[in-house]
Amino acid sequence: MPADAHAPDETYSYLGPAGTFTEAALAQVTAAQGKNWRPVNNVGEALNDVVAGRSIAAMIAIENSIEGGVSATQDALATIPDLRIVGEYLVPVNFVLVARPGTTLADVSIVNAHPVAYGQTHLWLDKNLPGHGHIPASSNVAAAANLLLHDHANAAVAPPGITKHYDLDVLATEIGDNPNAVTRFVLVSRTVAVPDRTGSDKTSIIAELPDDKAGRLLEMLEQFATRGVNMSLIESRPIGDALGRYRFIIDLDGHIHDERVADALLGLKRFSPNVIFLGSYPRADKLAIEVSTRYGDDSFLEAREWLNGLMN
Amino acid sequence: MPADAHAPDETYSYLGPAGTFTEAALAQVTAAQGKNWRPVNNVGEALNDVVAGRSIAAMIAIENSIEGGVSATQDALATIPDLRIVGEYLVPVNFVLVARPGTTLADVSIVNAHPVAYGQTHLWLDKNLPGHGHIPASSNVAAAANLLLHDHANAAVAPPGITKHYDLDVLATEIGDNPNAVTRFVLVSRTVAVPDRTGSDKTSIIAELPDDKAGRLLEMLEQFATRGVNMSLIESRPIGDALGRYRFIIDLDGHIHDERVADALLGLKRFSPNVIFLGSYPRADKLAIEVSTRYGDDSFLEAREWLNGLMN
Amino acid sequence: MPADAHAPDETYSYLGPAGTFTEAALAQVTAAQGKNWRPVNNVGEALNDVVAGRSIAAMIAIENSIEGGVSATQDALATIPDLRIVGEYLVPVNFVLVARPGTTLADVSIVNAHPVAYGQTHLWLDKNLPGHGHIPASSNVAAAANLLLHDHANAAVAPPGITKHYDLDVLATEIGDNPNAVTRFVLVSRTVAVPDRTGSDKTSIIAELPDDKAGRLLEMLEQFATRGVNMSLIESRPIGDALGRYRFIIDLDGHIHDERVADALLGLKRFSPNVIFLGSYPRADKLAIEVSTRYGDDSFLEAREWLNGLMN
Amino acid sequence: MPADAHAPDETYSYLGPAGTFTEAALAQVTAAQGKNWRPVNNVGEALNDVVAGRSIAAMIAIENSIEGGVSATQDALATIPDLRIVGEYLVPVNFVLVARPGTTLADVSIVNAHPVAYGQTHLWLDKNLPGHGHIPASSNVAAAANLLLHDHANAAVAPPGITKHYDLDVLATEIGDNPNAVTRFVLVSRTVAVPDRTGSDKTSIIAELPDDKAGRLLEMLEQFATRGVNMSLIESRPIGDALGRYRFIIDLDGHIHDERVADALLGLKRFSPNVIFLGSYPRADKLAIEVSTRYGDDSFLEAREWLNGLMN
Repeated sequence: MPADAHAPDETYSYLGPAGTFTEAALAQVTAAQGKNWRPVNNVGEALNDVVAGRSIAAMIAIENSIEGGVSATQDALATIPDLRIVGEYLVPVNFVLVARPGTTLADVSIVNAHPVAYGQTHLWLDKNLPGHGHIPASSNVAAAANLLLHDHANAAVAPPGITKHYDLDVLATEIGDNPNAVTRFVLVSRTVAVPDRTGSDKTSIIAELPDDKAGRLLEMLEQFATRGVNMSLIESRPIGDALGRYRFIIDLDGHIHDERVADALLGLKRFSPNVIFLGSYPRADKLAIEVSTRYGDDSFLEAREWLNGLMN
Repeated sequence: MPADAHAPDETYSYLGPAGTFTEAALAQVTAAQGKNWRPVNNVGEALNDVVAGRSIAAMIAIENSIEGGVSATQDALATIPDLRIVGEYLVPVNFVLVARPGTTLADVSIVNAHPVAYGQTHLWLDKNLPGHGHIPASSNVAAAANLLLHDHANAAVAPPGITKHYDLDVLATEIGDNPNAVTRFVLVSRTVAVPDRTGSDKTSIIAELPDDKAGRLLEMLEQFATRGVNMSLIESRPIGDALGRYRFIIDLDGHIHDERVADALLGLKRFSPNVIFLGSYPRADKLAIEVSTRYGDDSFLEAREWLNGLMN
Repeated sequence: MPADAHAPDETYSYLGPAGTFTEAALAQVTAAQGKNWRPVNNVGEALNDVVAGRSIAAMIAIENSIEGGVSATQDALATIPDLRIVGEYLVPVNFVLVARPGTTLADVSIVNAHPVAYGQTHLWLDKNLPGHGHIPASSNVAAAANLLLHDHANAAVAPPGITKHYDLDVLATEIGDNPNAVTRFVLVSRTVAVPDRTGSDKTSIIAELPDDKAGRLLEMLEQFATRGVNMSLIESRPIGDALGRYRFIIDLDGHIHDERVADALLGLKRFSPNVIFLGSYPRADKLAIEVSTRYGDDSFLEAREWLNGLMN
Repeated sequence: MPADAHAPDETYSYLGPAGTFTEAALAQVTAAQGKNWRPVNNVGEALNDVVAGRSIAAMIAIENSIEGGVSATQDALATIPDLRIVGEYLVPVNFVLVARPGTTLADVSIVNAHPVAYGQTHLWLDKNLPGHGHIPASSNVAAAANLLLHDHANAAVAPPGITKHYDLDVLATEIGDNPNAVTRFVLVSRTVAVPDRTGSDKTSIIAELPDDKAGRLLEMLEQFATRGVNMSLIESRPIGDALGRYRFIIDLDGHIHDERVADALLGLKRFSPNVIFLGSYPRADKLAIEVSTRYGDDSFLEAREWLNGLMN
């Protein structure tokens, strides 16, 4: 059976090839175990697979990725309709130094590395391999794979999972200069039922301002603040149709089934000429959201009962 | 049949006696024509009549009254439960100079007048009756009535309607120093069905802040601003139980049956530990409320449909 | 020497006659001891005395006065230029029942009382003098004074200080229905140097909105909130020149010499087409204002040093 | 003279090698003409050159770069002290298809391209070169340079300026799928005098919130809104020291020498525990900033005169 003959609802697209951080994110998805994982070249291809029905979901980087594509992800989510984020996954962005079996650290004079990864391991490499040379690779995985194709380099900077796919030895682990670096990935599907509330959820939206008068962003954010809804991410992105027009990518603490989030979305929808609901889904960090009683579900129900009493 | 034997649902209480500005406000109420008008001494008595079922409604001054009682009105509405404002009436606060039949302006040397009314006609009196003397009266009506009881004074400062009740001549009209002065009255009833929307409505509420942290009032007002609801009146009043605690008397443009007002009331109810809905009622000035499309009823309905679509 | 021959800088105007609550407020002013106290009929006369140089200061009620005049005070302060509030005084608004010497409570069948005071002592009178009659008086002091002029009534409702001026017996004290009622008075002078900071100060201003767009009041209040300046009073008052135009009477916690208050006044001045600074003065309640470090004077000085460092 | 022997104040660092979009940005800098341009591997190296005094300034991508590094840029600016943005440059991000001299479009079967650039020219390539193969390159410049090193590919996707550095033919221009794509670059120097106001300026800052209470971002943005200062960019970035802590990268319309911007910076400094001023500099788009009279310099000067008048 050819590789592309997998049933679409058994297929997950991701930025490949095998061994990338994106694959490490996909490995966290329980439902994807044992299914077909389809490597693609970029975020656009991954989302197009979902839209075209070639795969059931795509794993894409959305924040702080060293593999690039974050702006592309945001712009794609803002313009491709009928997508829905269904899960969030965090992958520590750290690196290992790998080499052909039998190589020791003392043997290493030339390092193959994607330029961005090279930049993020610079301090370690300078200290432990003084005077080494650098051959750039087209990707983190390619850096490692190249070791087996030819002997231009003695070692490569690669993601930790690389040795599952390539017969290489690990010479050093955690060689990244920032030990806390993390990339956030999201699993994107076509419009489906919203996942259930877990008490530790996130809601992602994209919204435009009605016009570019000063203070408009403030007005928009008041829609959240007046309902006690906290934001964990906000980014402005030029819309691209005219100078000075922006859309905002926003993550809210909470789930669309939380009364305060639903009410904030209503307010936002009335205010903004263009709101895209990207989804409510469990937080990767599993942190429980703390909400004051004033903004709990009960408070919303009581207020509605009070109002109904006044009207009748 | 004794005066008090009138059926309560045929009786309207007002600050008496006949001839006051409050009576002039009551005269504007179509439903009160031909019914029993019960004069009382103050706002408390008027509202007590309503609560005790002695009258169906009470006319009371709520803003800028020269007959006093505005703070008393606000405090009474904040503390007496189950009252509802059902109408609003504006009465120009101007004065006439009246005298016993046959008197001319040249005859006037002593003027009987309530001290507040005297203060508001001071410029006219000084100019037209230089050297006159002033005898204070206990009320505007009493000033006129006294002329018929004894001859201590030659003239009185009184409300324009006074000659319907007393056999007096008008020596001069519109003698008030501020020709634009207006008092706002409200007709208060027990909790009843809210009057229908007219497109020119007002909603009165009283609300407390959750605590006295700086910025709390701002947060409360954001509940209105985020729904495009304008305020035409706001006053802070000490609650009286502890220093530094305030309640706010607020008039909103619009009717509880307007989606944006209803939604703002929901937000307010969740925010404030104590909200009193005093009523929605037609505006006396009949000014149509202008609402941007963003905050019209359709905008609320569309947002709800959108949200329902997302959830299902 | 005639009564009006006192030197103006030795004269204080107040709502008379002797015995009013306003006189009780004036009695709290140390600098006024032993000076000429000039009783006038209303707030307008009191302020006119100050403007015309007939007195150095006037004591007037500004909040919650049963003697009326609060709206009048606010409007006068908004329209008469070059006035400055220099002090604030609280007077408990309670009442005594007084009678001609020798009278006992059992003798009382008719009570002389200003209608507003009568309303505020209604519960006590109904309970302790069931079946009594009421003769209205033109003022609280007149109620008492009338007892000595004729015998229409056996007792009068009067301010506690009345027995300093009239030879009357006190039959009962604290007969007011609301034992916590307080009236706030301010001492108003011509523009003078601002009194020193005490750490427990208040700043009074009047400001108009630039136009009547929804949300304008919110914008104005943000000028205070962004500097951590709390409000202890806010009232809207129709300006009177056109329907729907309001000015706001506002009391701020703090002194114009507090950096955060000065900065908020700058912001307000830029925002509002018409700001009136009424004065900074010690609070009557002597409550210390709590200010977070973020908004203390040091925070302002440090920020300025930082900015200067950036610019140079 | 060796390459590194150039005087530091004659040297500009940029993401190399020659031919990158970053070099195209540097080519817009008048002062850099005829000086030494030092190619480096990433943003960190470029900024380190500036800090260490190896170069006078560095050109780095700050928004929407297909060459990556935007998050890295933001994090570097937030953590490396004493840097100052002194200019902003926009480079259209479009591509050309290049080949060895003599090659025609019909000859092309294999395309060498950086994966991100390949993703952004996908539509054009699929339409005009159906069935072509793709060899990934480590950078846009390397894609072109590889054509001269070996014949694995017949053509390469490269930046428009590439033919100034490599002897290649252009087979097609503007092959990017988004013809409006632009990358924003900034020229970063050590702390220097702020460039003069031009009337079309931008101010870049980074600020942290005092704590993670809901509504804090709103409070921070009110510092701008209350001074009529508009934002053209806002992005949240995790600080990295603890979950849920964010810093905000913000671009303001206007110059630190504009009164409203200076005042907003003062407010921000008081509010935020950590503010970094990155610089005021001319806008690349040369758009004049429109400011309402209310927030013009004159308004600030008048307010200060008014306040001084009140205090003295």
